[in-house]
Amino acid sequence: MSRSMQIHEALQAFGLSTDDHDILGVSTLEQAGPHDLCFAEEAGQAAAVARSQAALILVGEDFPEVPGTTLLRVADPRDRFFEIAALFIPAPETEGIHPSAAIHPEADIGADVAIGACAVISAGVTVGSGSHIGPGTYLGPGVRIGSDCLIGPNVSILRDCEIGDRCILHPGATIGGDGFGFRWDGSGHRKVPQLGRAVIGDDVEIGCNSCVDRATLGITRIGQGVKIDNLVQVAHNVTVGRHTILVSQSGIAGSSALGDGVVVAGQVAISDHVQVGDGARIGGQAGVVKDVPPQAAMFGTPARPVKQALREHAALARLPDLLKQIKHQQETIERLESRLSRLEAGQSDA
Amino acid sequence: MSRSMQIHEALQAFGLSTDDHDILGVSTLEQAGPHDLCFAEEAGQAAAVARSQAALILVGEDFPEVPGTTLLRVADPRDRFFEIAALFIPAPETEGIHPSAAIHPEADIGADVAIGACAVISAGVTVGSGSHIGPGTYLGPGVRIGSDCLIGPNVSILRDCEIGDRCILHPGATIGGDGFGFRWDGSGHRKVPQLGRAVIGDDVEIGCNSCVDRATLGITRIGQGVKIDNLVQVAHNVTVGRHTILVSQSGIAGSSALGDGVVVAGQVAISDHVQVGDGARIGGQAGVVKDVPPQAAMFGTPARPVKQALREHAALARLPDLLKQIKHQQETIERLESRLSRLEAGQSDA
Amino acid sequence: MSRSMQIHEALQAFGLSTDDHDILGVSTLEQAGPHDLCFAEEAGQAAAVARSQAALILVGEDFPEVPGTTLLRVADPRDRFFEIAALFIPAPETEGIHPSAAIHPEADIGADVAIGACAVISAGVTVGSGSHIGPGTYLGPGVRIGSDCLIGPNVSILRDCEIGDRCILHPGATIGGDGFGFRWDGSGHRKVPQLGRAVIGDDVEIGCNSCVDRATLGITRIGQGVKIDNLVQVAHNVTVGRHTILVSQSGIAGSSALGDGVVVAGQVAISDHVQVGDGARIGGQAGVVKDVPPQAAMFGTPARPVKQALREHAALARLPDLLKQIKHQQETIERLESRLSRLEAGQSDA
Repeated sequence: MSRSMQIHEALQAFGLSTDDHDILGVSTLEQAGPHDLCFAEEAGQAAAVARSQAALILVGEDFPEVPGTTLLRVADPRDRFFEIAALFIPAPETEGIHPSAAIHPEADIGADVAIGACAVISAGVTVGSGSHIGPGTYLGPGVRIGSDCLIGPNVSILRDCEIGDRCILHPGATIGGDGFGFRWDGSGHRKVPQLGRAVIGDDVEIGCNSCVDRATLGITRIGQGVKIDNLVQVAHNVTVGRHTILVSQSGIAGSSALGDGVVVAGQVAISDHVQVGDGARIGGQAGVVKDVPPQAAMFGTPARPVKQALREHAALARLPDLLKQIKHQQETIERLESRLSRLEAGQSDA
Repeated sequence: MSRSMQIHEALQAFGLSTDDHDILGVSTLEQAGPHDLCFAEEAGQAAAVARSQAALILVGEDFPEVPGTTLLRVADPRDRFFEIAALFIPAPETEGIHPSAAIHPEADIGADVAIGACAVISAGVTVGSGSHIGPGTYLGPGVRIGSDCLIGPNVSILRDCEIGDRCILHPGATIGGDGFGFRWDGSGHRKVPQLGRAVIGDDVEIGCNSCVDRATLGITRIGQGVKIDNLVQVAHNVTVGRHTILVSQSGIAGSSALGDGVVVAGQVAISDHVQVGDGARIGGQAGVVKDVPPQAAMFGTPARPVKQALREHAALARLPDLLKQIKHQQETIERLESRLSRLEAGQSDA
Repeated sequence: MSRSMQIHEALQAFGLSTDDHDILGVSTLEQAGPHDLCFAEEAGQAAAVARSQAALILVGEDFPEVPGTTLLRVADPRDRFFEIAALFIPAPETEGIHPSAAIHPEADIGADVAIGACAVISAGVTVGSGSHIGPGTYLGPGVRIGSDCLIGPNVSILRDCEIGDRCILHPGATIGGDGFGFRWDGSGHRKVPQLGRAVIGDDVEIGCNSCVDRATLGITRIGQGVKIDNLVQVAHNVTVGRHTILVSQSGIAGSSALGDGVVVAGQVAISDHVQVGDGARIGGQAGVVKDVPPQAAMFGTPARPVKQALREHAALARLPDLLKQIKHQQETIERLESRLSRLEAGQSDA
């Protein structure tokens, strides 16, 4: 079925006759042209809707009327919009197996696999069916890639690491770098051999230039459904539970374990050997230095419960004035003391 | 004109006869050899000038005399120095079109373009005249590169993204990675399709291993003349105004908009959907969680006006002693209360 | 000598007859199979030892008895374990010189050098004997690599930079990017030419996607034995002393100088033109804005002595309650004042 027919069907499923609409794309209200589909969620967007050139705008049931626009009222306009938008996802950038790819004869390449130009596939690699390996990407000896993965360009996956099914790795991601471990031998830092692996579960996405190090021994494990943003660091022997989210530039130090459904915001640091419970939420730039209970919301460096941290910040904002008040109180107390002494002297005189 | 003649001319333009100077390079005072040009700005550098082996040292009009050295007095020694230093910038590392580059026949490569070994140029790419594409760099389908750009090695620019004229992209920079957007569907994070693009203006520089994500819809836009340092994250749908500076390891979350001439220092985090006004200055490691007015100077997490933040930090430093003082005051107050009660009892007795 | 014989000898050196043990690997207690060697350091691990399937477990002299396991008591079980574990380090991933590598005829490649597929070696490069250059890695004109280095895949080392002997560079590391220097010329940021180099000493390790910029003039210098983790930024003209450690996502701004044996923890920012003395320890996420004396331990933003910072944080946690106490004191003082005034009035009446 062609994409335009799919769009047609999707809109008809919303009860719309689309004979008069020729939707060729999806866009924002501001940037839409006369063949674009858009959505608006909040009544406050009515002016933007009025200004938009969009062909058709999905809105909620109670969105205000906007004369001169074609609104389609649906229960959940954002979700409906993105369902249709998904039809516009372009095909993966890499197609077929490029003749310049260096594929070792002992690699096992599945059906319908695409491998980009100048990709390098080592001995003992397995690539599951339907996966795409980007140009310039390196797969080290013994690497296993599941099915239907999209591995971007210039990715490096080092020896013996495993990637699950339906994973997406963005450009420059690095899996299986050595853990950062050294012992001082009296004259220099001796390297602790890094003999483990990194194992990435199914349905994981890893952002541009992010790093997941191999374990010293055993496995650095990223659970099923985990989403990792750009420039994130996951150190050796870390365990990340299922469906956990690591936002950009966050870092998890060695041997720490995050539960399921944790949300780690941007630029968070989690120290080594820390346990973070299921469903915990770590606020932006927090520094976690000890265990976090399940469902807890933490903030600050060192990280503490977010309510406490906000109360402290509010109190801190009052501190400069407080210093003046204390000084004033001190003077008052001293005056009181003098006055009291005089009174006492008077009484004893009496 | 040869470089040595250019140097000759530049020095003569400062009124210097250069017959006795054979300047072959530029350097620091400490590391200069007998054929290097240097500069010194402050009188405090006189000892370093005396120790230097430099052939010639540009100094300000009021720099002290330093016997045994050749000083050239000019109005702005740093600027004059770097004008001459610019003559020593080596040619770009990539020349010609390397036979190992994988260039799609439907790519449009301008005049005098250089393409490095193992670079990969996809269908529909346009590269403007005089641009250099580094070895191992990937340009996805439909990418447009302006004229006179320097794209370093191992850069990844994904489908449909645009780079203006005279841009410099350093190694490992990644343009057009998917925005980080998901919706929870009850059993997992469903990917929000990332259908927009990233558009980089003219005269932009982007540092090593920095990332600019494509928009979910529409455009992630980097304005003309913006300078981005290494390891910086710019998320989906961000707008960065003209001549704004993003220092190393800073991160801008989704849909935030920075004005013109903003300075974002190192390791700053700017939350999503935040507006930062023209000319604002965000101090190192700050965490911006709400809008920042134009020209404001902010510091801390959460970010607040820098004067307030510094006053709070100064007050915080006094807090431990303050706790003792409060305790002491409390005791004094209690003693006063007892004494007062005794007095009151005495008076009522009287 | 085969690896199994080496293991045999190593265990015999500990006084163990190994006839009954066929050690084929090393692992953690939890993940070990029946042919793995493990170690345990603390008595608290006795239960994990009991559960482990390991063939043999190195423990300290005073480790408790654990029935049903084979314990080997040694003085320093961790060190002994990793000495044996080192026998299991696999060979480097890159072997031989791949025909797809683009090696300039004017490059000087030493004996026993391995160069991966699609690596790009420019004119004037020198690679010392026994070094391995990963697939997709770029060495710019005039780059010098010492002997016995392991340069990973997709690394970029730009013109004229130098790497010492026995260095390890992990995937995506970038050496010699331009320093981040600009001057405002009234209409835009003019690039300050970056004419220096980066020079990396012997025995240095640099993590995945980390960046060391070239100097504006002169040299950005990484001392012998320095260990740099992933995603670290080292700016132009920085000097890092011998055996200093930079943990993941830390950043050192331009022209700062770190002494020998400094430890910079994760996500630390060190401002430009700062001196950090030998043996200083900078705690995670600290922001160093002024010089740090040798051996000092610093924490917080702005960084201050760790004891002071912790005292301040403890005091801050008490601040919200303190505000209430101050308010209460204020009321008490005012009451005292009234009572005192009444007394004084009574006395003057008397």
